[in-house]
Amino acid sequence: MIRIGIDLGGTNIAVGAVDDGHAIVSRVSVPTLARRPAAEVVGDMGDAVEAALAKAGLSIGDCRSIGIGSPGTCNSAAGVVERAYNLGWDHVPVCRMLEERFHVPCRLSNDANCAALAEQVAGAAVGHDNVVLITLGTGVGGGIIIGGKIYDGMRGAGAELGHTLLVLDGEPCTCGRRGCWEAYSSATALIRQARQAAAEHPESLLAGAEEITGKTVFDAADRGDETANAVVDRFCDYLGAGVTNIVNALAPEVILIGGGISRQGERLLAPVRRYVEKNCFGGKDGAIPIIAAARLGNDAGIIGAAAL
Amino acid sequence: MIRIGIDLGGTNIAVGAVDDGHAIVSRVSVPTLARRPAAEVVGDMGDAVEAALAKAGLSIGDCRSIGIGSPGTCNSAAGVVERAYNLGWDHVPVCRMLEERFHVPCRLSNDANCAALAEQVAGAAVGHDNVVLITLGTGVGGGIIIGGKIYDGMRGAGAELGHTLLVLDGEPCTCGRRGCWEAYSSATALIRQARQAAAEHPESLLAGAEEITGKTVFDAADRGDETANAVVDRFCDYLGAGVTNIVNALAPEVILIGGGISRQGERLLAPVRRYVEKNCFGGKDGAIPIIAAARLGNDAGIIGAAAL
Repeated sequence: MIRIGIDLGGTNIAVGAVDDGHAIVSRVSVPTLARRPAAEVVGDMGDAVEAALAKAGLSIGDCRSIGIGSPGTCNSAAGVVERAYNLGWDHVPVCRMLEERFHVPCRLSNDANCAALAEQVAGAAVGHDNVVLITLGTGVGGGIIIGGKIYDGMRGAGAELGHTLLVLDGEPCTCGRRGCWEAYSSATALIRQARQAAAEHPESLLAGAEEITGKTVFDAADRGDETANAVVDRFCDYLGAGVTNIVNALAPEVILIGGGISRQGERLLAPVRRYVEKNCFGGKDGAIPIIAAARLGNDAGIIGAAAL
Repeated sequence: MIRIGIDLGGTNIAVGAVDDGHAIVSRVSVPTLARRPAAEVVGDMGDAVEAALAKAGLSIGDCRSIGIGSPGTCNSAAGVVERAYNLGWDHVPVCRMLEERFHVPCRLSNDANCAALAEQVAGAAVGHDNVVLITLGTGVGGGIIIGGKIYDGMRGAGAELGHTLLVLDGEPCTCGRRGCWEAYSSATALIRQARQAAAEHPESLLAGAEEITGKTVFDAADRGDETANAVVDRFCDYLGAGVTNIVNALAPEVILIGGGISRQGERLLAPVRRYVEKNCFGGKDGAIPIIAAARLGNDAGIIGAAAL
């Protein structure tokens, strides 16, 4: 028997058939074309499920369940995507829609929660029951696993860890509040911080770069550029401060960092660990978690959705 | 059958026999005399248990379990108080010590967690499974109930919600970090804020007060004192900002405010609710919890410990 995992994104719908060992045995990806009516998108999700099954030489009778990881606020208990701005979805009962077609149990959670679950069942947090995954991308996403299960609070609105404060009334955040962690620790924020530094330091490699990405900044730092190193150091402090908040509030056994920037490995993780040891409640005697990079990359969405 | 709840404080040991309806049927309080050897304190806890039973006309055979709420970091699974600075305790296996005397199951948790559990089983949060209690006193204490159970993370070190950030590198906090919520929203912080305002505004009622307490500030605000009202308004913003963090991170159904200041009722709660509605993720469409005052006051420690 297999389970289907659907990673529903603003750009693509990625569907995988996942075996009991959490391996993806076949996969299909189709464009989301997000601004269409939800029924059309869900129709294409269903077609992709059939295609993924066919590719593995399976039929729906071999499928134990279908899991969906969606952006936005997902009410798991109801199987409803409450709000997903980048899909233009408002109260879409996606589980019921797929169950009517396939007659197989369908489950739903937010994509960040699915990624956290994937790391807990098959990635960098195997063997640990209380895990937090932070994804650094356009924003700062959060997934919380408590007692081996996703915790996302009332109507799935919790785990928005990127929208806890770093600086009251600080940098404006996309959510409308000011000073959220996301406004300091997302990839977007790093690029903004690097641009500002480049403007102030025309001698820096950053000032000469055609386009600044997260990787540009870390590469320049690697090559000994002082300005880039200062930007990276400060970015690691911001990240460490938010991770320390998670340690003090939730004391999970493992905190994982995902998203493109997490590929920087120890240049990012070592300073974050030092920051947490210095600043968390109880200091070195405190509940210092394992702090590591997420391992499953883009597969986490499918594997986590299948494991719902 | 009854359960015993022990509220172990830096000043007093309060012991109660609690019936199945969570009512305290008898109670005994003895001084902690905190700086003695732990074995002596635990000996007095045991004597107080026997006294509370005798007062209710009961014996240990009528007792289902003994629960202990202790300050500091408590490892519930091991039944060990890991560190409690104001008791001078370091790794005290309090459950084992009481079990050897009474041969009844003993359970342990942090006092803030016990207070949260009490409100969930018998106070302002009855009927809700996901609850956070914030206690405003010398510090800002936190208790988290998830799925009807205390959640306190690895070795009981979590739920230190007072030690999440409001302002990176802001006011110094007792924990050694700077900018923690506790440094802005504790009763101690309110008094500091009022003293500063009094020094800047000699015309204020606050400047004339012999001693400033939390109540002095709210009383002066009630009497129309502009400076006091500005202090209270800003204090409510700080409190609202921290409560908003909890909403975004955990989306509990209920957030309760306890401690002496919570007796100010709507003067405190109404602005906090407005702040949360304006600033939480999703705004008025977000997962706005019930925000209310805790109800059980000083009894919460005993009732919660008994319910462990």
